Formats: sequence, C-alpha cells, structure tokens
Amino acid sequence: MTSPLDPATASHGPDAASATPLSRVTVLGTGVLGAQIAFQAAYTGSDVVAYDIGDEQIAVARARFEGLAATYLTPQGLPGATEQTTQEALRRVTFSTDLAEAVTDADLVVEAVPESLQLKRDLYGRLAPLLPERTVLATNSSTLLPSDLVDATGRPEKFLALHFANLIWVNNTAEVMGTPATSPEVFRSVVEFARGMGMVPIELKKEQPGYVLNSLLVPLLNAASALLVKGVADPETVDTTWRIGTGAPFGPFQIMDVVGLRTVHAVSVAGGPEGRAFAEMIQRDYLDRGATGRESGEGFYSYPAPSAE
Amino acid sequence: MTSPLDPATASHGPDAASATPLSRVTVLGTGVLGAQIAFQAAYTGSDVVAYDIGDEQIAVARARFEGLAATYLTPQGLPGATEQTTQEALRRVTFSTDLAEAVTDADLVVEAVPESLQLKRDLYGRLAPLLPERTVLATNSSTLLPSDLVDATGRPEKFLALHFANLIWVNNTAEVMGTPATSPEVFRSVVEFARGMGMVPIELKKEQPGYVLNSLLVPLLNAASALLVKGVADPETVDTTWRIGTGAPFGPFQIMDVVGLRTVHAVSVAGGPEGRAFAEMIQRDYLDRGATGRESGEGFYSYPAPSAE
Repeated sequence: MTSPLDPATASHGPDAASATPLSRVTVLGTGVLGAQIAFQAAYTGSDVVAYDIGDEQIAVARARFEGLAATYLTPQGLPGATEQTTQEALRRVTFSTDLAEAVTDADLVVEAVPESLQLKRDLYGRLAPLLPERTVLATNSSTLLPSDLVDATGRPEKFLALHFANLIWVNNTAEVMGTPATSPEVFRSVVEFARGMGMVPIELKKEQPGYVLNSLLVPLLNAASALLVKGVADPETVDTTWRIGTGAPFGPFQIMDVVGLRTVHAVSVAGGPEGRAFAEMIQRDYLDRGATGRESGEGFYSYPAPSAE
Repeated sequence: MTSPLDPATASHGPDAASATPLSRVTVLGTGVLGAQIAFQAAYTGSDVVAYDIGDEQIAVARARFEGLAATYLTPQGLPGATEQTTQEALRRVTFSTDLAEAVTDADLVVEAVPESLQLKRDLYGRLAPLLPERTVLATNSSTLLPSDLVDATGRPEKFLALHFANLIWVNNTAEVMGTPATSPEVFRSVVEFARGMGMVPIELKKEQPGYVLNSLLVPLLNAASALLVKGVADPETVDTTWRIGTGAPFGPFQIMDVVGLRTVHAVSVAGGPEGRAFAEMIQRDYLDRGATGRESGEGFYSYPAPSAE
C-alpha cells in the first residue's frame, strides 16, 4: 500500500498515473500572485478563467497579464519563452466577474483573494453550491492553514493548500499541504498539476504554519534582526557573514529588502519584544521616509545592491 | 571622535593607520583549525610560531602544514598559490613545545586549544607571566565568550576573540569580538591583522554567543530539524525548498552534513525537546551506522551530493 503523502510513492508509485489531470483551471483573484498563477497555468497549457469582483479589477488584470507576457520575454523572464508561446498563453485566459460562470466547468479552483479569514470563508460559502462535484479547491493562503478554512468549503476531501511564491516562473516552488481530510488522490493530482505548471512540488506531509519555506526563513530573519536590535552588528556585516559563511547569494537583510519592509514590519510586530523593537526601527528608520525595500529603490540598501564581497 | 567598534570608522577613520601592526604571531594548538590559522598567517607574511604540548603533536602538525601547502595548490586551494609561495610560508613557521620560548617575541598570540573552559583558563594563567607587555591575546573559541576567560588573562585590555572558520582560505571570515575591557586600539589592530591575513573581518560591537554566523545558522538548522522531527517534510524536500526559495547553493541538511553530524548531535542535545528528539534521530539513524556526514561519505545524503534541482 502506498501513501500519497509520501513523496517517493506519490511520484513513482503504481497509482501515480491515475491522478486525475486538472486541465481547466479557475483562479479567484487577479492580484499580483493570482495573475502570475493564472498566466503560468495558461502558459503551460491549461485553459484558465481569471475571476475578479468587478470590471475595474478585470481591466487591471488584463494589463497584468499583458505585462507578464512581456516580462516572460526578458532576461528576467522564462528561458525559451517566445512571442508565440506568450500570445498563446494569453489566448487561453478568459476573464469573468460572474462567480457561477467562472467555476462552472473548473477541474481546479485556485483561490488567491486577499489574506482575510472572513473573506475567504465567505467566498467558500458562496462557491460551495456552484462548484461541480469533481472540482478541487485550493487556497494559495500564506498565513492560514487549510484546517482554518476547510469547514466552509463543503468538500473537505477535495480541499487543500497550493502555495506559490512571487515571481512564480523563477521562484518555482509550489508547496502542497492538505488537511487530514484531504483525499490522497486529490493531493496527488494537485502535485501533478503543479509539476505540469513547471513548478517543483513541495509536498508537506502535515499542516505547518508558514509551510516549509517560511518555517525556515522566518527564524533566520528573526535571528538577523535580533543581532541588529541588540547592537551586535549592522546589516552589511550580517549579510557579508552569511554570504561568505554559506555561499548564499543574499544575506538576510537583502532578503528582507526583496520581501518588502512593509511585510517584514507586519510579521515583526506580531513577534516577541525583539520583533516589536525591530518593527519600530523599521517604521522609524525606513517606512516613515518611504523606504519600503527593493521595490522603492531604498531599504537596508540602496539599489542596485552590493554584490557579495 | 571615532569609535573603534564602529566598522565604518575602524576601517576608514583617521586613526586606522595607527593600529599597531601584528607581524610576529604565535598560535597555541596545532589541531585542524590551529594549523590552518598558523599556515594562512605565514602564507600572508607573518613570522609564525606553532606551539603544541609535545613532540608527537608537533610531528602531526608538521604533516598538517605540508598537507596545507599541497592543498593550497589544488583547485580547492587558494587561487594564485604556487610552489614558491607555499614553500615560503612553510619556511616562516617554526615549531615549539616550550610555552615560554613560543611566546617570547609574539605581537599576537592566537589560542586555538581544545574547547574546554578549564583548559583555556589554566593555559592563560601560565601565559600571563610569560607574555611580553605588548602582546595581544586572542581566543579562537567557538562557544565561549571572551568575558568567560578575560579574568584569567591578566591583560583585559589586550584580550579578545578572533574566530575563524574551517577551510580558512575559502571560508575567509574572521569574527572579531571584544569584551567591554578590550582596548579600542587593540580591537582595531586585530581587525587589520585579520584583513592582512586575507580575511574579511566581521566586527562585533557587543559580545554575542555564537558570534554572527552561528547566531544565524543555528536557528535555520533548528527550524529545519523541527520540520523533520515533526514529520512535515523530509531532508530532500526541505533542502530543495531552501535552494529554490533563496538561491542558496546548499540547504540546511546539506549544511549539517558539512558541519558533521557529531557536532550537530552535540548542539542538538543541548536544545529543547525538539532538539533532543532530533539528536536521538541522528544517533539512531546515522551515527550508530558510522554516517557522520560528508567526511564519511554518508549523512543525510550519500556523497557526491545532489546539486540544486
């Protein structure tokens, strides 16, 4: 007997071929990440419906998709992407502001709406009577566990988390995390869907706040900020040490600049005394003067950032 | 007024040039790291005395130095090293088993004896009457703070920690950490000595257990081991996530294999319940069958290790 929660058997076991292909995908929410998920799914051959709540959001979404098609062709884009492949991707996306219409023929619905428990639960309640029996529902939530949401879905065995990273075509991990109620076959089919999207599926065998990546990254960033708050070392010193000591291309403060100091602030405020002291420092020394990290050109570093010494 | 504990002024301030050059160096202890410190100092032009307690240790040390001279010429060695430069380095090293003779003309004594508080304190007590007035004493201790040792030295203003990493010519950080009693000029002269040795000096403004590198690394490794102990994800999954998510060349379990599982075990045993559970797992699944990490060819991975996906 193979367990679909064991990566070895999930990929290579006798049942792997039987995972239901998920080829018709609806993405709920067309923000930065929702648009990336939808475009990458379309780029890799899925028929995609991009849903958002109003015509204004859809107009923004159309621009985001055009922007992604252009970005894929740049050196920061996807190697091998061409005018033809990106235009084909755009043609595989349809837009909708009608929830019932958007999901009517979906094999997979990926929810990527704002990070609010109540918003997501309300949406799931409205979805429940609209979804076809076969449809798998996945949340891209970064901070909630699927167990926080599952009872609102009405389909516990067909619900799990599928978590992507920003700049999905480069940072191509897809963390897959079920609840105890998630069907092994559904888990497996979502892993295969992610792989088909060009992602490296990261299979979590149990629910874990922060999935794998943030469970590792947050302690590192907290340790770095503690060294700064305690006055042990400055960001450049900490980052230089990390780059030389581990061979990594970026130190923790460089990573914080990429994540964005607003997000770092929000996470730190929720931490202990050192976290709150760090949040105050970020607010006072950076956010209050418009330095929000790499996106603003100014954070712990001015950009372009220094390379490793 | 400039503070020597501020890296900006320490490197570039008006007083930088006045730091006393430390050109005659004695290294106490010729183990793996002691030998590397002594050889690298000699390679970069210092006159070096390598001290150890007996003829047997000195015989081993001579072999270590010959080995380092050979290693510097390999692709894993120091770019630019030649037969001539390595032979010159060897000629700049003298050996001694007589403590008084070893330190009689030292500008700097680097203590790299085994990691025992009592051993180091006893040694410092014997050194105190032997050291010239001008001599700076530095400990390479990884786990002790200089404050734990300073009262045994008899020269608080000329004592500090100077901490190197294994494979010193590649992992070329030198963490410099004083006590409140360390003289600013001494601190600065040791920073300049480290720079002259080809190191990147990492200046700590306050004492910090684990210095900078281990203060960052240990929380990351603990977070990784917690994911394994809790059954969330296996080592390959964790490492893949880290490599893709941060661009780092090695994931935390690969790093543990390099550090060595005996050391990881020792550190984990001293941790909380998850650390102890991890230590038990390492003992049972790895150490008990001789898998001590990369050095043994077998740890979380078999070597040669897989590269990033």
